[in-house]
Amino acid sequence: MNPQYGTPTNTPTPSQLQHLKLALPGALARSQASKGKKNNAARAGALTPLQFRHLVRSKHFTKPTNGQCPGYLQCNLVVLDKHDTAAFDFMLFCQRNRQACPLIEVVEGPIVDNDFVAEGADLRTDIPKYCIYRDGKLETEVEDATDYWPEESVAFLIGCSFTYDEALVSGGIPLRSAEEGKNVPMYRTNIACREAGSLRGNMVVSMKPIKARDVAKEVEITAKFPHAHGTPVCVGCPQAIGIHELDNPDWGDSIELRDDEVPVFHACGVTPQSILLESKVKFAITHAAGHMFVTDRLSEETV
Amino acid sequence: MNPQYGTPTNTPTPSQLQHLKLALPGALARSQASKGKKNNAARAGALTPLQFRHLVRSKHFTKPTNGQCPGYLQCNLVVLDKHDTAAFDFMLFCQRNRQACPLIEVVEGPIVDNDFVAEGADLRTDIPKYCIYRDGKLETEVEDATDYWPEESVAFLIGCSFTYDEALVSGGIPLRSAEEGKNVPMYRTNIACREAGSLRGNMVVSMKPIKARDVAKEVEITAKFPHAHGTPVCVGCPQAIGIHELDNPDWGDSIELRDDEVPVFHACGVTPQSILLESKVKFAITHAAGHMFVTDRLSEETV
Repeated sequence: MNPQYGTPTNTPTPSQLQHLKLALPGALARSQASKGKKNNAARAGALTPLQFRHLVRSKHFTKPTNGQCPGYLQCNLVVLDKHDTAAFDFMLFCQRNRQACPLIEVVEGPIVDNDFVAEGADLRTDIPKYCIYRDGKLETEVEDATDYWPEESVAFLIGCSFTYDEALVSGGIPLRSAEEGKNVPMYRTNIACREAGSLRGNMVVSMKPIKARDVAKEVEITAKFPHAHGTPVCVGCPQAIGIHELDNPDWGDSIELRDDEVPVFHACGVTPQSILLESKVKFAITHAAGHMFVTDRLSEETV
Repeated sequence: MNPQYGTPTNTPTPSQLQHLKLALPGALARSQASKGKKNNAARAGALTPLQFRHLVRSKHFTKPTNGQCPGYLQCNLVVLDKHDTAAFDFMLFCQRNRQACPLIEVVEGPIVDNDFVAEGADLRTDIPKYCIYRDGKLETEVEDATDYWPEESVAFLIGCSFTYDEALVSGGIPLRSAEEGKNVPMYRTNIACREAGSLRGNMVVSMKPIKARDVAKEVEITAKFPHAHGTPVCVGCPQAIGIHELDNPDWGDSIELRDDEVPVFHACGVTPQSILLESKVKFAITHAAGHMFVTDRLSEETV
């Protein structure tokens, strides 16, 4: 495993890997190559997304997913009751706010029944941590959402910026959050999203410290990933988007900013969670910030 | 003329235009379109590059050229004696330092004898201001370089970032220097260029104040102009490249940086002048910083 991704707190431990070997005989030997897909993204020794999801399903991995399964698309999750008008409104919200909510796939029911993102995945269990929202408030966080899942659900999968972490690292841009085993810092901004029906609120952004000399490269790389929030919405000037305390993120972990670095802000898939709160949606399940759904889809595949 | 380009100090005055009309009957009516070229870059009422060069040749225009002839390639100039070994070294220097010195054309003798950049142009007079360097020192600045021109000369034309000003303005990114009728601020950096023969020294950069929210767009637009220094070498952090006094540029004019803006630094065609000084080249003529050679070539045409 590349040292960039070998992190003290969110990398599977040897005992977790041992568990996986017992639970899935032969799984570690399989690779995407056997399915005829490109496997350039798969690092030697790294788990395949399927293996990783099984580790998550068995709750042997419950941490943020930054740095996991490098080279594969990671997704934010929003689950609504199909009969709630918020379901239509939310789809429209994604359409109108594509940088914050690049919609990858919509799944009806809890099981993914085709191979567009991850055939056979169970959205109720295959994410490390979930948030349960009721009447515009965070009710609880759980590692298994089965007991809360609506009978008739619609699940929105939204591209996550972790998707291009591999491309950034390959391009020579290290990622401090993953290196330090931390979640990324995320902030509410003053950037208003376009309203959709009953849904309104401001964009949430994630922050990466990037060397001032690497900013152009960071933009050129992330421009290739419009399905994962694309280029930064703001560079070098937190106050320009209403962020006044870099050390005090609204979600995730605070992270060091060095003298030769600038804070680079990308639209973030936690935006829907802020919107659900702001708009007092009756009921919703989301991933917990930083704890993503890891798909079988390669990062570079646009949608 | 677009207000972005209508500037108090470096826009031709009505009397200058009147002079041009007398000197070049019918010139203002001609356009690039009549030569079968695209003329989408030519603004209604703006001078063609040919008209502008004639205004310069007659010394009715002696100011910085930022904002002039929007949509056309502007070039830095370096003239050396063909028999000086520095001529070969400088060509190699350009090859090795393409971001600072994107070489567009090499002209032997003072007259441009083909239409690759500007057929019939006289490099001794068609630039608003020149610097004369001798033994690694700036000897003088002149508006007509004829008396100093080497008998056997080789002139290097190097793409200038003014080239993409039009694209930035069209993309919704205003340029304060041109708006305020100022030259751009330029700075020595601690970024070492690759050496070539006897030539060595550090990169010079120009600075634009860009809204933090527009940085990604600025990078994506300038990425299309590798022949004019391309993307920024540094964003938002002057000290990362050894610049400690933004208000005190080494060339050009100081410029306001607002609260929601960051300084964006691009490699600059004044780099050769710094190199010629540092390397104590025996004799050279260059353009004066900001006073460019305006070509007939459209900005978007890569080289």
